[in-house]
Amino acid sequence: MQLDNLQLKMEKKIDQKFTPLKELGEFGLINHLTKDVIIHQPNTVKGIGDDAAVLDTGTVYQVITTDLLAEGIHFNLVYTPLKHLGYKAVAVNLSDICAMNAKPKQITVALAISSKFSVEHLNELYSGIKLACQKYGVDLIGGDTTSSLTGLTICITAIGEVEKDKVTYRNGAKNTNLLCVSGNVGAAYLGLQILERERKLFEKEGITQPDFGNYTYLIERQLKPEPRTDIVKWLEEKNIVPTAMIDISDGLSSEILHICKSSNTGCRIYQEKIPLHEQTADFAEEVNMHPINAALNGGEDYELLFTVDIKHYEALLQNDQIRIIGHITEQVEGTNLVLENNEFVNLASGGWNALN
Amino acid sequence: MQLDNLQLKMEKKIDQKFTPLKELGEFGLINHLTKDVIIHQPNTVKGIGDDAAVLDTGTVYQVITTDLLAEGIHFNLVYTPLKHLGYKAVAVNLSDICAMNAKPKQITVALAISSKFSVEHLNELYSGIKLACQKYGVDLIGGDTTSSLTGLTICITAIGEVEKDKVTYRNGAKNTNLLCVSGNVGAAYLGLQILERERKLFEKEGITQPDFGNYTYLIERQLKPEPRTDIVKWLEEKNIVPTAMIDISDGLSSEILHICKSSNTGCRIYQEKIPLHEQTADFAEEVNMHPINAALNGGEDYELLFTVDIKHYEALLQNDQIRIIGHITEQVEGTNLVLENNEFVNLASGGWNALN
Repeated sequence: MQLDNLQLKMEKKIDQKFTPLKELGEFGLINHLTKDVIIHQPNTVKGIGDDAAVLDTGTVYQVITTDLLAEGIHFNLVYTPLKHLGYKAVAVNLSDICAMNAKPKQITVALAISSKFSVEHLNELYSGIKLACQKYGVDLIGGDTTSSLTGLTICITAIGEVEKDKVTYRNGAKNTNLLCVSGNVGAAYLGLQILERERKLFEKEGITQPDFGNYTYLIERQLKPEPRTDIVKWLEEKNIVPTAMIDISDGLSSEILHICKSSNTGCRIYQEKIPLHEQTADFAEEVNMHPINAALNGGEDYELLFTVDIKHYEALLQNDQIRIIGHITEQVEGTNLVLENNEFVNLASGGWNALN
Repeated sequence: MQLDNLQLKMEKKIDQKFTPLKELGEFGLINHLTKDVIIHQPNTVKGIGDDAAVLDTGTVYQVITTDLLAEGIHFNLVYTPLKHLGYKAVAVNLSDICAMNAKPKQITVALAISSKFSVEHLNELYSGIKLACQKYGVDLIGGDTTSSLTGLTICITAIGEVEKDKVTYRNGAKNTNLLCVSGNVGAAYLGLQILERERKLFEKEGITQPDFGNYTYLIERQLKPEPRTDIVKWLEEKNIVPTAMIDISDGLSSEILHICKSSNTGCRIYQEKIPLHEQTADFAEEVNMHPINAALNGGEDYELLFTVDIKHYEALLQNDQIRIIGHITEQVEGTNLVLENNEFVNLASGGWNALN
């Protein structure tokens, strides 16, 4: 931190040839930047590397997660109403809290906004933020509101609580555990495809009233995801503590691989067991896509993927919002998807992509 | 949240005439957006409205604060080395924790970065983040790294702890309390003026080695502020609990007014008591500015401003890093600055600006 050598040269540096960020990828980059992070505080139980960090506050564990949404990257305001954006920004953070088997309690909201936005726009955004807070009993306790040169950035930090013996990481899956998913998967991704289709019509032909056909469920899944606090509550009522859990933000396949890699296991999941909404199946057929692609690769479902001891098999059958899609295996068996024709494909290689 | 009426019209909306954000100002906007926020959680002790939120975790209070820094608004990469930027982004958040009389423990870091940045740039940024964490014994426990279409945005959330009977808000100042400030004020603002001057030379004449003359302290105060954890620690050792505290981010005058408004008091501060570094006085003279302007309006000092019971007068004199600049009065007496010629000017009206 020598100031003597300070030079006005940032712009020049940027012109030079350095390693592009995309060469490492998101997970590689995070790993690279944080691999030498040192923990000093005795109450830091878990730092970087799960859906949320874990702090020991005495009688319970506190879980903390942060997500940043940037205009043009995570959302397009042409088809994302600001109220929905505010709601979704909260929901995706609460989903990370759920993924630790915890209950969300508080959030902070930091905004950077350019001068193209008005007070009325922010009223809309905040009405969605407050609606999500109200629905999930979460307190908006602070934040920051500042200018930006371009567009809108929202950074939300969510805080939750979980009993110490119930916190669930990604790395606890064991051989023979059942692999479960809540709700259904693939719908949010297809909702985005419809919104993109309508955006193009809007830009080409000026049609401002989009035609969603019979696919309003898909749109709703994209624009208004809900964190599965109900699943966390149900598991608690049934005294079921998952051995591993993650929320589905990047796609079912990617999340299964996270659990298997963290837990040093393999898995076997069955194509026919993967829960699809009927609109997911219908729209995939309409656009000649195999719905399993949307389900495995799509992302933004914000459902919970978790593993449980096989002794809970009967209990799990009672909840029609939970589907057992396969089981955990020894690591040497690999991460397998069993197709309807009994063929095995490796999840890690994305072999099902050929189904298109 | 009716999806049926969803229209692709955001861009159109933006073109319409709505209330510009600047009409409300930063504090007015935050107040407008959060005035109807409801608290649901029994462990939320203090929400929006202080330097940090306060949660009851059982034996101690936890304090939480979030700050977002946007390129082009809060920093200019032409003269801000990325390592310093990372360090400063952490420091300003830890300063908010100090302002609650608390000790910083953990941070999360969310980044949005455009493709103009390389892995090497992020290494620099993170080296500053990690250096600040190491110096202050703070754990980097999580975050988010994502793309942006333009520039760099950093959102940091800091978490700290304070014994329940020592948490210090803005609203506890009482008549006759001493008004104290740590370190010195105005230097960071003048450092920014020098950096801006050198940037203009760089852009006009291509001079890449800036000339800071004898003002390296001013530059350092701008580029590498330090949170005053030492003051919080000293107050604890001396069993002094301030009645009100705030950190100086927007300028001494603005922060004094925050304390007086929150506490329903007035104040009297003395121009001659305001602590200035000799470089602050020298550079102000060089550019024909009254140093009191930099001190009162400048901002980014990240010093602590606090009020204490008059019984601690003798103890405070022992610490050469703390200066008593005046005292709290009844509200009816107003918020007064006593000039060296014994003239009274109203802080709220910015009357000292005429000193230029």
